Formats: sequence, C-alpha cells, structure tokens
Amino acid sequence: MTGSVTVVGLGPGKEAMVTPEVTNALARATDILGYTPYVERIAPRDGLTLHPSDNREELARATHALELAAEGRQAVIVSSGDPGVFAMASALFEALEGAPRHLGGQIAILPGITAMLAAAAAAGAPLGHDFCAINLSDNLKPFALVEHRLRMAARGDFAMGFYNPRSASRPHQFARVLDILREECESERLIIFARAVSTPQQTIRTVTLAEATPEMADMRTVVILGNSATRRVGDWVYTPRSAELPA
Amino acid sequence: MTGSVTVVGLGPGKEAMVTPEVTNALARATDILGYTPYVERIAPRDGLTLHPSDNREELARATHALELAAEGRQAVIVSSGDPGVFAMASALFEALEGAPRHLGGQIAILPGITAMLAAAAAAGAPLGHDFCAINLSDNLKPFALVEHRLRMAARGDFAMGFYNPRSASRPHQFARVLDILREECESERLIIFARAVSTPQQTIRTVTLAEATPEMADMRTVVILGNSATRRVGDWVYTPRSAELPA
Repeated sequence: MTGSVTVVGLGPGKEAMVTPEVTNALARATDILGYTPYVERIAPRDGLTLHPSDNREELARATHALELAAEGRQAVIVSSGDPGVFAMASALFEALEGAPRHLGGQIAILPGITAMLAAAAAAGAPLGHDFCAINLSDNLKPFALVEHRLRMAARGDFAMGFYNPRSASRPHQFARVLDILREECESERLIIFARAVSTPQQTIRTVTLAEATPEMADMRTVVILGNSATRRVGDWVYTPRSAELPA
Repeated sequence: MTGSVTVVGLGPGKEAMVTPEVTNALARATDILGYTPYVERIAPRDGLTLHPSDNREELARATHALELAAEGRQAVIVSSGDPGVFAMASALFEALEGAPRHLGGQIAILPGITAMLAAAAAAGAPLGHDFCAINLSDNLKPFALVEHRLRMAARGDFAMGFYNPRSASRPHQFARVLDILREECESERLIIFARAVSTPQQTIRTVTLAEATPEMADMRTVVILGNSATRRVGDWVYTPRSAELPA
C-alpha cells in the first residue's frame, strides 16, 4: 500500500469541533506523530503506533513522518487548532524542501478550527471585519518584526488575533506588546483574553486596552483586539460589518 | 421550552468538513434561516421550517431569528465557512443591538472551517506565518479603506487572504487591487487563486503577481497572497515559520 503523510487539525480542544474528515484520517492511521499533549488526545488501538515528541521538535517530527510514509505507513501528524496556522503544516513543507526525495509522496493537509476563531465565536463576533493573525513569539523571528507588524496592523485599523502571547521564557514581551498597542490605539479599545477555549475550563474576559495587564494572558490564552468600531452588546463583543476610513 | 438562536458555520462546501457540534445543532433546529444556496444544503424533515432568503438580507434574517427564539423556537442561522469571518455572526449582534428586548435570549456561535483556511490547506501552507484576512467588497466600506489596508498589510509583510475578490457589479476593482499589490510587493510574489474549495469543482492555481490577471478570480474564488518568503516546494506553496524584518 502506498504510504502517506496527513497533517490534521484537532481544533482547540472540544471533541465536537473535530471535523469528520479528520476523525476518518485518524481512524485510518498506522502512525500518529505530534506534540505529546496533542497525541494524548488520541485513543490507543491495535495497529496504531503513537509517536509523541517535544515542543520545538517540529522539523524532526515532520521528517520522521515523511520517512514512515516512504516505508508505506499511513502517518498522521496532529496539530491543535488548524495545522496551517502557526502549526505543523509549514514544518512539513520545510522538511520536504530539505528532503526532496520524498517529493513524489502522498501528502494532505486537513484544516481544523483554529483557536482564534473559536475564541471569537465564544466572545461574539470580534473578527467580523478585516483582521490579522500574529504570532507574538520571537522564537523564529526578531521581536522588532512583531513590533513592526503590530504598528502596521493598528494603522490599517485591523482587528487582531494574537497567538502565543506570553510564556515563562519571555514574560516581559507581552507587556511591551500592550504598550505598543496603547501607543497606536485609543485607550477604550476592547481586548479579549480567551483562555482554554472550548474546554470546560474556558474563560472569556473583555477589558479596555487601558485596563489590560500582562498577567491576563498565559500560554493557554488567545488574545483578540477589536478594531476602532468594535463594541459590546450585552455580554457579547462584536465588530460591525461596515467601516470607515481611520481618521 | 426556551428558544434560542445558534449561528453555525457549514464550512466551505464538503460535508466532511462540517463539525459534529454544527451537525447536532442542525438536528435540533426547528427553524433554519440563511442565504438560499446555504439553506439548500440542509435536508428537509418533519418539524423543521426552512427560511431561505436573499443575499444582502442579513439584518432582516437576523432579526427574524431573534423573533423566532422569543416565540420559543430553536432558530439556526447557517453561514458558509465560519460565521465570524465575513458572515452572519456580526449581523446577528447588529440586530441584537437594534432590538435590545432580545438581550436576555439564548445565543451561541459555532465556528466552521473558513474558506481561506481550507484554501490554504489545499495549496500547502501559504498562511503558515502572520497573515491578514481582507474582504475586498466595498459593499459596506469605502474602497479607499480596502486600498489603505492592502498597503499596511503589504508593508507589514503579512501573507493575505482575500474574500469576495470580484463580482459582476464591480468588475474593475480587483484589477486595481492587483495594481496596488504590484506597487507594494516584488513581481515574483506568489498569489494563489483557489476556486470552489473542498468541492468536486475545486481548482488551485498559483502564479506570480506579475502573471496574475483579474479574470483569474470570480465570486467562488478565495485569493491568497504569500509574504516575501513564501515559496514553492514541488506542487505545494508554503510560507516558512521563520521570518526577518523587511528591508
């Protein structure tokens, strides 16, 4: 049987958000690879080998999947959220670029519900107009690029979704992010801290930029900043479909 | 029984991309409202009333759903893709703002796979780094704002996903969009035209900005522009996870 690599998105956490095509790919897999907490979401069964690995092992994991496929295995790489959004799909193509002997192999990317859009749904519709998604980690890019993109996005009056806002290894950067946003945006701009989205531990907290503090985010938090028209209606937050040029 | 309004995302077209929580909400509905082509995806059954309506009827449709919920009905509004991305979630909250007597009602937004991310998965991983989503229609915003956002996003070196690139009523604007992008980006920048994503009619075409023509897009097309590092590997297109400051 011809081998394959399928990269699938498990969504933000709730099983009812996993698409049937992803569930079917998991059922057909002979090997499942991924960051340990995501592989732990998969039930063991006969004929299935689980290959959990560490964070920051993305390239080695992707290369391993390509090698398994070359041996005729059905390898599935699991990502949380959507594999194409700050997850394993890019790492797979980087690995493929570095090992072009695998170019003829069968590859598929199956999308999932990304955390930013699940968080937006839980809060209302804060991304209901043009928006940006920005990974705040400077693990693979200079922090000056994060700062530049924040300013361009703010000057374009985009709503924004932020991934990886804060970690133990870089506790001060999110404070700097909030400072930049306060320089670029009005102090009443709404900002949403969505933690553990779609799980029983989910919390959604909306404050103004003036009220926001770095401690409101951790590694399980997705942060959404509204645009200049984003507002509250009851407990919900939404961005209107219509917009004007920024002043 | 208490009524409710649930806004659900049907994904880009393929049934295997509809999440189980959306399928369950559709099964519990007493009334399904939406743009006619989306309501036509729902199988009729006893006890279910279908309320198809026209495009540009979003506010009236949302108000109707709130009224049905107030009568104790389980109203489900169907969107294609994700309801929070250029779809019905914002319209519902606009309607709620205009009819605050419905504020105590039960409302839920259930995310779906948005066309841009399904297109990205079909092409590889072109949105694997920071990206923007921009609705190119000037139906609800001045075209000058579209132009401003394109320039800010390009100067931030964001990858971009474009919704509603071209329609019969505004055939010339997408030509202007391509001109702006050619002013801001290098001519070898990759641009992907993804049509009828996830359906049997799906086509994915990747060209350079220099080669792109307005006729490559129509109303069923989502367009993805890479960032300055986006490249091909075999037939795939991907954006690396790492990045540098733009020159």
